[in-house]
Amino acid sequence: MARKASLSGYLELLPAERFAELHVLDTLREVFEAHGFSPLETRAVETVETLLQKGEIDQEIYAISRLQEEERSGREAKLALRFDNTVPFARYVTENAGHLAFPFRRYQIQKVWRGERPQAGRFREFSQADIDIVGDGALPFRCDVEIVVVMARALEALRIGDFTLRVNNRKLSEGFYRTIGLTNTPAALRVVDKLEKIGPLRVAEELRETAGASAEQAELALQLAQIRTSDCTFADKVRQLAGDRPADLLQQGLDELTELMSELNARVPGRAVADLSIARGLDYYTGTVVETVLHGHEDLGSICSGGRYESLASAGKRVFPGVGLSIGVTRLLSALISSGELASSRSVPTVVYVTLRSDDDWGPAQDVADQLRRRGISAEVALSAEKFGKQIKYADRRGIPYVWFTDELGRHEVKDIRSGSQESVDPSSWAPPTEDLTPQIIRKTEGL
Amino acid sequence: MARKASLSGYLELLPAERFAELHVLDTLREVFEAHGFSPLETRAVETVETLLQKGEIDQEIYAISRLQEEERSGREAKLALRFDNTVPFARYVTENAGHLAFPFRRYQIQKVWRGERPQAGRFREFSQADIDIVGDGALPFRCDVEIVVVMARALEALRIGDFTLRVNNRKLSEGFYRTIGLTNTPAALRVVDKLEKIGPLRVAEELRETAGASAEQAELALQLAQIRTSDCTFADKVRQLAGDRPADLLQQGLDELTELMSELNARVPGRAVADLSIARGLDYYTGTVVETVLHGHEDLGSICSGGRYESLASAGKRVFPGVGLSIGVTRLLSALISSGELASSRSVPTVVYVTLRSDDDWGPAQDVADQLRRRGISAEVALSAEKFGKQIKYADRRGIPYVWFTDELGRHEVKDIRSGSQESVDPSSWAPPTEDLTPQIIRKTEGL
Repeated sequence: MARKASLSGYLELLPAERFAELHVLDTLREVFEAHGFSPLETRAVETVETLLQKGEIDQEIYAISRLQEEERSGREAKLALRFDNTVPFARYVTENAGHLAFPFRRYQIQKVWRGERPQAGRFREFSQADIDIVGDGALPFRCDVEIVVVMARALEALRIGDFTLRVNNRKLSEGFYRTIGLTNTPAALRVVDKLEKIGPLRVAEELRETAGASAEQAELALQLAQIRTSDCTFADKVRQLAGDRPADLLQQGLDELTELMSELNARVPGRAVADLSIARGLDYYTGTVVETVLHGHEDLGSICSGGRYESLASAGKRVFPGVGLSIGVTRLLSALISSGELASSRSVPTVVYVTLRSDDDWGPAQDVADQLRRRGISAEVALSAEKFGKQIKYADRRGIPYVWFTDELGRHEVKDIRSGSQESVDPSSWAPPTEDLTPQIIRKTEGL
Repeated sequence: MARKASLSGYLELLPAERFAELHVLDTLREVFEAHGFSPLETRAVETVETLLQKGEIDQEIYAISRLQEEERSGREAKLALRFDNTVPFARYVTENAGHLAFPFRRYQIQKVWRGERPQAGRFREFSQADIDIVGDGALPFRCDVEIVVVMARALEALRIGDFTLRVNNRKLSEGFYRTIGLTNTPAALRVVDKLEKIGPLRVAEELRETAGASAEQAELALQLAQIRTSDCTFADKVRQLAGDRPADLLQQGLDELTELMSELNARVPGRAVADLSIARGLDYYTGTVVETVLHGHEDLGSICSGGRYESLASAGKRVFPGVGLSIGVTRLLSALISSGELASSRSVPTVVYVTLRSDDDWGPAQDVADQLRRRGISAEVALSAEKFGKQIKYADRRGIPYVWFTDELGRHEVKDIRSGSQESVDPSSWAPPTEDLTPQIIRKTEGL
């Protein structure tokens, strides 16, 4: 990403960078499919009505309209581009419920658009990779466990460095507020959500001012938000704070978060922390909530977030509860690429560049290339018989590892440009080492 | 696609159909990369100015604007969604020329949007798969040959039935018109392009009326357009029609088309026809032009089109000639899926459904599933210990081929739901036949 974006807020990659991105997307797909998630895409366009359904919206939506408007009729619904994958997925589930087997698990890796003010690391077009499990009427809590485990494994498979899943449960926070008599729980959650941004003093102040907390309630809420444990000991600390008569909801939240933390520690050890400051205040979560910090990239904010929502979608009396997490792929990728932590060894898929001795040799050279291609070795033929030095330089500049020569007697030699070593070979059997078959992904974090 | 689209003109697939689509996209990517084409994506959004640059536009463009407009300033460029992959690619090439090695070959598989009137097989959002080779200043003609060969191989690799590439050369047609004194060549090309739609009589009439042809010229132009040969004999027929003094341009066109046809017959035998009615009248092609008919799906029109353009893009005095072809993936796919010619064996990636004897067995069952996943076998664990019959039925309904049982002594058995056969197995070593590892693509055209 050496060049400047020609339209601010829109990222475009160079081919070598796109290879790195494809590697990330392929890896995610592989992990998601290994765990039984089906691929799904929805259309880019939704009615504005659908997009605004969930109420509170802080995303700026892009509306679309035909440039040539003459035939627009008032009856047509106003349309806009999706700003996440969850709202379109909810719409898809209600429309196609008759064709899906519930609990339905899908992954969805697509672009979304938001009219944000351009700033470093914020894009107006970016890819999100979502997984969700949706039930028809009910959905067991172990789906929450599965979703978090699968995402932890996906992030591990990306090998982008150390990360921590920060997990909490809204039932726990809300139940705690009820237990201590703090009744405006939505306001309290919204305030606590800002803990990292504004600090404990301001949170206590805002809890009193906007959530109607007494000084003592504010202090207790603040103490709750400061609990962080890498095991299940958070539960004892919460009980100590809550006193003798915990609300049912608090007990449920404690049970769920305990189950989640204990499974995470068994299945993805060292990856999760019970962090009771996590609230995701503005969203529609009703239980498990998750944020993820990538160490060394704390400025990115959460790279993977989501949680449980008792009513992802509904159709008449039918309710579809869900649980899901979403990785902000573009943001993550652009940070790793610009910092040099993620790169690709070449800008082309080509393994072998077949040189030309004379312009008439193009046909036979394509025959050689075809023999390689048929065995899965990407090959390209020179377009004209320039001096060998120039042909080799062309291959080298694009990172192609091997050049191929055929002499006037039809004898073949292949040269490794990197080492300079050259050997006699047979086009029907020669193969490069496996690691040269596709562009290699280079990670600066490896070995740290 | 049993259900109706909730927004007309927008196609959404069910998971099993998406597997078929992914298979198509993966196959294209594999063929393109084997031939040295690099992956590329451009942003969905272009300035309206960029989109309208190429002059004549018959696509209806979707403009985008923020739903919350308060801050819009007059200085911001008006933005719209791309309607093809070529115009954005041209813009990308000029912007990033300093970072690309020319000739630059890339593939680009992305959604595009057009505000077309919805009708059968026409979509407002659809995927196009493009390959192009772009030069800096000049581009050898053999790039035309390569592009057509690669696309023919891509279509062969899709195994969607028999197809014919109909190739022509604009220099040949224009050169012929000049030779016979028909000077309004753009108008003549536009008329001839309608041959299949309106028939020879009307074409002759329109050539006289709108292209200023004499009766004899119209007759000759019509005879030219009716030449179709599967080898290089078209050249003799053209020379016979053109008489003694062919224009230089005609000779160039004949040479190029002869080279193209002879290479195609050598490299992808039986796939191409020199069809001198092909004009692609409204586009900016300057040499080779290609359309593709899928036998049995003639109503789809051309499933893969494109050609040579001497000026794909320019920046100051620098000109970038290109040659490219584009497959209309969504249209093709939706036709093959609705006709039942293309389908997938299941709606989930899952190979093994691990059943539960009791609800407490979920942890050990996940351990079994993990052993399979680590060896690339997609596995899913039941969410609750319903009756085995019910668990098996759930797996069966989703097309999962195997169910797994572990008894109270920790002994494992796997059952093939399709055959009913059941055997004792070890989770650390059991593997299904390779063809069960991923959903199988089912083709009705196979064996025809």
